[in-house]
Amino acid sequence: KEEHLRDDLKYYFMSPCEKYRARRHVPWKMGVQILKIIMVTSQLIIFGLNNQLVVSYKEENTMALKNLFLKDYKGVDEDDYSVAVYTKRDFYDSLFYVMNQYSQLDQLSVGPISYAEDENGKLLPLIMCKKYYKRGSVEPSEEAYNIDAQLETCMSHDPKTANLWRTENSSFFDLDFYLVDIKITFQLSGINLQTVRSRELPDCYAFFITFDNQCHSGKMKIFLDIEAQSSACRDWKISGTQKNTHYLLVFDGFVILMCLTSAVLCTRSIILAVRLLQRFSRFFHENFNRKVCEDDQREFLNGWYLLVIVSDLLAIIGSILKMEIQAKNLTNYDVCSIFLGTSTLLVWVGVIRYLGYFQKYNVLILTMKAAFPKVLRFCCCAGMIYLGYTFCGWIVLGPYHE
Amino acid sequence: KEEHLRDDLKYYFMSPCEKYRARRHVPWKMGVQILKIIMVTSQLIIFGLNNQLVVSYKEENTMALKNLFLKDYKGVDEDDYSVAVYTKRDFYDSLFYVMNQYSQLDQLSVGPISYAEDENGKLLPLIMCKKYYKRGSVEPSEEAYNIDAQLETCMSHDPKTANLWRTENSSFFDLDFYLVDIKITFQLSGINLQTVRSRELPDCYAFFITFDNQCHSGKMKIFLDIEAQSSACRDWKISGTQKNTHYLLVFDGFVILMCLTSAVLCTRSIILAVRLLQRFSRFFHENFNRKVCEDDQREFLNGWYLLVIVSDLLAIIGSILKMEIQAKNLTNYDVCSIFLGTSTLLVWVGVIRYLGYFQKYNVLILTMKAAFPKVLRFCCCAGMIYLGYTFCGWIVLGPYHE
Amino acid sequence: KEEHLRDDLKYYFMSPCEKYRARRHVPWKMGVQILKIIMVTSQLIIFGLNNQLVVSYKEENTMALKNLFLKDYKGVDEDDYSVAVYTKRDFYDSLFYVMNQYSQLDQLSVGPISYAEDENGKLLPLIMCKKYYKRGSVEPSEEAYNIDAQLETCMSHDPKTANLWRTENSSFFDLDFYLVDIKITFQLSGINLQTVRSRELPDCYAFFITFDNQCHSGKMKIFLDIEAQSSACRDWKISGTQKNTHYLLVFDGFVILMCLTSAVLCTRSIILAVRLLQRFSRFFHENFNRKVCEDDQREFLNGWYLLVIVSDLLAIIGSILKMEIQAKNLTNYDVCSIFLGTSTLLVWVGVIRYLGYFQKYNVLILTMKAAFPKVLRFCCCAGMIYLGYTFCGWIVLGPYHE
Amino acid sequence: KEEHLRDDLKYYFMSPCEKYRARRHVPWKMGVQILKIIMVTSQLIIFGLNNQLVVSYKEENTMALKNLFLKDYKGVDEDDYSVAVYTKRDFYDSLFYVMNQYSQLDQLSVGPISYAEDENGKLLPLIMCKKYYKRGSVEPSEEAYNIDAQLETCMSHDPKTANLWRTENSSFFDLDFYLVDIKITFQLSGINLQTVRSRELPDCYAFFITFDNQCHSGKMKIFLDIEAQSSACRDWKISGTQKNTHYLLVFDGFVILMCLTSAVLCTRSIILAVRLLQRFSRFFHENFNRKVCEDDQREFLNGWYLLVIVSDLLAIIGSILKMEIQAKNLTNYDVCSIFLGTSTLLVWVGVIRYLGYFQKYNVLILTMKAAFPKVLRFCCCAGMIYLGYTFCGWIVLGPYHE
Repeated sequence: KEEHLRDDLKYYFMSPCEKYRARRHVPWKMGVQILKIIMVTSQLIIFGLNNQLVVSYKEENTMALKNLFLKDYKGVDEDDYSVAVYTKRDFYDSLFYVMNQYSQLDQLSVGPISYAEDENGKLLPLIMCKKYYKRGSVEPSEEAYNIDAQLETCMSHDPKTANLWRTENSSFFDLDFYLVDIKITFQLSGINLQTVRSRELPDCYAFFITFDNQCHSGKMKIFLDIEAQSSACRDWKISGTQKNTHYLLVFDGFVILMCLTSAVLCTRSIILAVRLLQRFSRFFHENFNRKVCEDDQREFLNGWYLLVIVSDLLAIIGSILKMEIQAKNLTNYDVCSIFLGTSTLLVWVGVIRYLGYFQKYNVLILTMKAAFPKVLRFCCCAGMIYLGYTFCGWIVLGPYHE
Repeated sequence: KEEHLRDDLKYYFMSPCEKYRARRHVPWKMGVQILKIIMVTSQLIIFGLNNQLVVSYKEENTMALKNLFLKDYKGVDEDDYSVAVYTKRDFYDSLFYVMNQYSQLDQLSVGPISYAEDENGKLLPLIMCKKYYKRGSVEPSEEAYNIDAQLETCMSHDPKTANLWRTENSSFFDLDFYLVDIKITFQLSGINLQTVRSRELPDCYAFFITFDNQCHSGKMKIFLDIEAQSSACRDWKISGTQKNTHYLLVFDGFVILMCLTSAVLCTRSIILAVRLLQRFSRFFHENFNRKVCEDDQREFLNGWYLLVIVSDLLAIIGSILKMEIQAKNLTNYDVCSIFLGTSTLLVWVGVIRYLGYFQKYNVLILTMKAAFPKVLRFCCCAGMIYLGYTFCGWIVLGPYHE
Repeated sequence: KEEHLRDDLKYYFMSPCEKYRARRHVPWKMGVQILKIIMVTSQLIIFGLNNQLVVSYKEENTMALKNLFLKDYKGVDEDDYSVAVYTKRDFYDSLFYVMNQYSQLDQLSVGPISYAEDENGKLLPLIMCKKYYKRGSVEPSEEAYNIDAQLETCMSHDPKTANLWRTENSSFFDLDFYLVDIKITFQLSGINLQTVRSRELPDCYAFFITFDNQCHSGKMKIFLDIEAQSSACRDWKISGTQKNTHYLLVFDGFVILMCLTSAVLCTRSIILAVRLLQRFSRFFHENFNRKVCEDDQREFLNGWYLLVIVSDLLAIIGSILKMEIQAKNLTNYDVCSIFLGTSTLLVWVGVIRYLGYFQKYNVLILTMKAAFPKVLRFCCCAGMIYLGYTFCGWIVLGPYHE
Repeated sequence: KEEHLRDDLKYYFMSPCEKYRARRHVPWKMGVQILKIIMVTSQLIIFGLNNQLVVSYKEENTMALKNLFLKDYKGVDEDDYSVAVYTKRDFYDSLFYVMNQYSQLDQLSVGPISYAEDENGKLLPLIMCKKYYKRGSVEPSEEAYNIDAQLETCMSHDPKTANLWRTENSSFFDLDFYLVDIKITFQLSGINLQTVRSRELPDCYAFFITFDNQCHSGKMKIFLDIEAQSSACRDWKISGTQKNTHYLLVFDGFVILMCLTSAVLCTRSIILAVRLLQRFSRFFHENFNRKVCEDDQREFLNGWYLLVIVSDLLAIIGSILKMEIQAKNLTNYDVCSIFLGTSTLLVWVGVIRYLGYFQKYNVLILTMKAAFPKVLRFCCCAGMIYLGYTFCGWIVLGPYHE
């Protein structure tokens, strides 16, 4: 029995190559892993290219809308705002510019973009709100004001007649310059025709545009925040394009299957290892009346298997999300890309394990393993000093420099 | 008696953890320190955010004033000047531009800014001075001049009629171009309404603006120096906002209390250590008739305590300054931020001491301590060569490169 | 016989200096190598200067054509496109701008550039194509379209009357903005007069210009792809300049001769080494009845000789290509520069061998040799992690950052 | 006698501190060195500030002249040229712009700049030259030209009537666009009034301006080369400023004296060392009948003394040049700054010697001395590979990238 246990132990700590030599055990698990690396990586690349199309569509539209609605926009944002305005005349100009451009949007833009509608097909209105401090009693001495709590008034109007507002609501635009901010909100809808070319169904987008105009000092910053929400297009009929998404769905299915197999195989290995450990410790206890020390117990628990299982689970969740996105049921590309990206990262890190089977690499890996905690400890000490320095630097130098 | 001294010595060099195990001594001092770290850091963050508001207000107003008063200002300063002018026509244009903009300031700026007044409520004048070389006798040969000592003439005028100057004082503007410089000085006052929103009393600012126009070569550099002085607003009544500065004052009081406690505890520890050292050296002298060597004496003096006391004193001074600033008695944020920042830096560096109680970190810290003088010595040698190189590089390459 | 073999072996592993001392053997091979370094390097420099003229001509013409044909071109390309257009009006303007500029090209450009001709001397036409989605049945509900497969229509016209197109084909320019892209293609020819100054025959160039106008989103990107093909000028008679290409051809011939000599000498050395190895292993087998181990065998094979032979072959091919280019039979400078550049790189790396003859350098070189595989192995491990990180970073952060 | 020699040897290898303790020898030499460091450094700083004034005057005038004479100049040069022109119309515009601006120079520039005169007080003319290829016989087939050797024609004219040229010499401006280049040359004179303020005599400058217009491809590059030559002002009488150059001349004299003393002291030390070596080797030869080995001989030769002497000589030459510059006999600041800069570099490097007298620093310096040749050798090997790589990279990638 002792002989049998020794054999099993020896076999357990062998590399796949040695296992093959010893018991002609074909390394299935390793084959599955290698196939998985290839499949997960290709899946990631396919999804990444798709994702890039979507992101670039959003970014280009953001840039286009900024160029359409912001007067004197230079093509790049400064720090955190888009355009800065210093004089009252410039402020009125940029305000009316937004309204004019909005009212003639359909003759302006080169892209397929139009006013958004509500469920009844009525155009959604443009809403303009201003916040300002109310003067209390204006006393004769010029520097003494009562500044009241801030007020907010709004007005909303039909997009087509936006340029009439100026004359109709002249009192609204008679701004008192203890103004806090003025905010214009409207909504546009667009369609991404790019995806039609890659033979997929197009996404439709709703743009929520906020023209914020904060005035704290003599420098009035203009922000244009654009939020793009994608959704499946309801009323579009695309003819003349074939849909090849079926092949992709089948491929995703295969990836899920492969990951499941890999996870099951690794779970089995862990269970076998635990059983072997139990046998070994029982034997140890019976023969030498001693417990197996903790370090030796830890040798049985293979960290790599845990890594593989975690990566498999992430890949399965990511693949399911990807299939849902392709079927136009979901549109949150970001969550899916985090799952797929992390699983691919772990899968590639796992390759180091196979390098460890080569004698020469093993030395390297063990050295790195041993040096790791020391490096971490040094980083911890340096981190303390750095933290103090950061606080000190932020408060003393921060406001003047970047 | 010897036994007693040995016990005290052993106890003195224990870590808080060991002290607790030995005599059930609860580590009050360590608790105070940890609480202090949290409080000092939060105080710093609150003050830093406040400080940033003030600094950004000053910076944005500087930018706004530059855009208002400088013709063809591109939004960023070059090297050390704001705008450069090369022709006489451009020079006159930018000079009259300042005066025009100044005379119509109240219709221009989007921010709450106005002409400054003296104590009697009279508007302060704009002052324009020019320095130039007087020609001696203009001889017929064209290249031979007498260049006299430089003269200076000034004129001052009411802001409202600044644009009349041009016609009234045409002889002043008939500039001889052996001009040295021309300087325009005026003063504006503003109010920071931002702080009203964070429910604090607003600061008022006085802007001292100097438009300097130095002409040494064919390139005339235009400088706009803006000095912003903040002061409590005298004649403003803010209604509708609550003042939550009381809570902050209480918090600052707690910080001062905590720092006092910490400083007192550390002073007590130092006194105890000195007494122990005296007992020990007396014992040593009596029994072995030898002096305690200097290295051993130094072991008794704990550098960390000094660090903590210094940091406490800085924090107390900083907190008092902060309270004064909040009560609008002081406005020098910079001095206060240096005190608070330095104390926070020292407090965080002090955390390394507690890391030294862990065996593994201690090795690291001792190694760094030992390596420090060698590194310093190397830097000293390299510094000499670098100093020589700097002088040589500055003189040979300096004027042509940056 | 054994004595003789020992002598030969000792002599084989000597450095040239020791060989000279031992048998008065003048180091011909080393002399040839040193001469070769000088010649190959000078040849490379001559070719490189020539190549730079050609490349800078192409680049400057590209820049000139972009400035001529692109409206509002700022002098640098953004990311991957030249100019971006956001409104329909800007789009039409930049389209008609190309056509106008093209029709009056001969009065515009400062360089010797003209319309390209076909074999019969007829001017080649400008071709304009547009791709767009066809609308299906326009239903009353505004958001429901049938988007058909994309169509393509083209028109071509004589360059001289390009500005008439606009009025004649107004229906073509009545663009439906489910446009995919519009492409304008034309061809120009130029002559590089710069090479005339360096007393060589001028090259003629054909420019294939594509004005691509992709519209996927609200941002229409304009590309101007210019492909410059150089060819010998057919119909030019250059008088008053001497051609000094003969001297260069003779120099190239000498380089080829030198490289051939070097290659032959190295091949001879390898053959001699192999024979010596055979003698040695036979002797070893006869006397000790053992095989020479593999490491010892490898000592006989001198890697440097292989390096020299490879570099010689590359230099010979490169020189032949260079001669063909100078004789105007070939124009692919890039292939030639790769051959010449690689051979020069190898020749200079080969100098390290001669440094190895000095005792002190030899230690250094052997150390580097020994450390090399360890460094490589570490890079391999780090590479795995980096690969995973790259994939993960590309998918998660990639689309939003650069 | 042996005892005496041993004493002298011991004393020779002592540090100044030990010498003082041994024979009460006050370290004069060291005092002189320390004083020299201070004086040489202050001299360098004074000269450097002065030099910077001169260089910034030149640079600012260069910038001013570029802005005056170049049409559409953007304030910074691209690569190697100032402005690029692509169309014939732009070319004529920028050509006539130079002539117009030149003819009205005295009403334009804000700086004291005027037309240069020859000895007789006559204004120097503007000279314009063009180089072009002559067409041979223009054959009917359009693409076949005879391109003749290049010709050159020039014209020169009075500055005041430069704008008349255009109408008078219309045939000159009827440019054939196989033009090689066109060159405009004129000369201006200016005075640096800045130095008047620092109470020194002003320098006068002559500007030689070349407007070069090379046309190799469709991109015509415009260069404006400005050469500024400074000279003493002949016909200027500066009154009302005191000249404080006397003090500076006295200070420079002191520096020269100090450096002479230092050089003489070091030469004496070297002579004493050589004599001691001779005594020692004679003694060694007589008593042990052996020669002193080379390493021991080298110990006697103190490299630091050589360094000090070289630095002293450089400082003396530099100081003499500086005095000449201050007396307005010389104007080449660059040569003087190289001498002064190098001497200061060496003087500061010499400080390391005094650090070597401290035990702990000495270890460091000896270690660095020992490691130096190994580092150099490694650099040599790496240099070979880098050289090959540079050649290869330049030829293969060079023309396309930077």
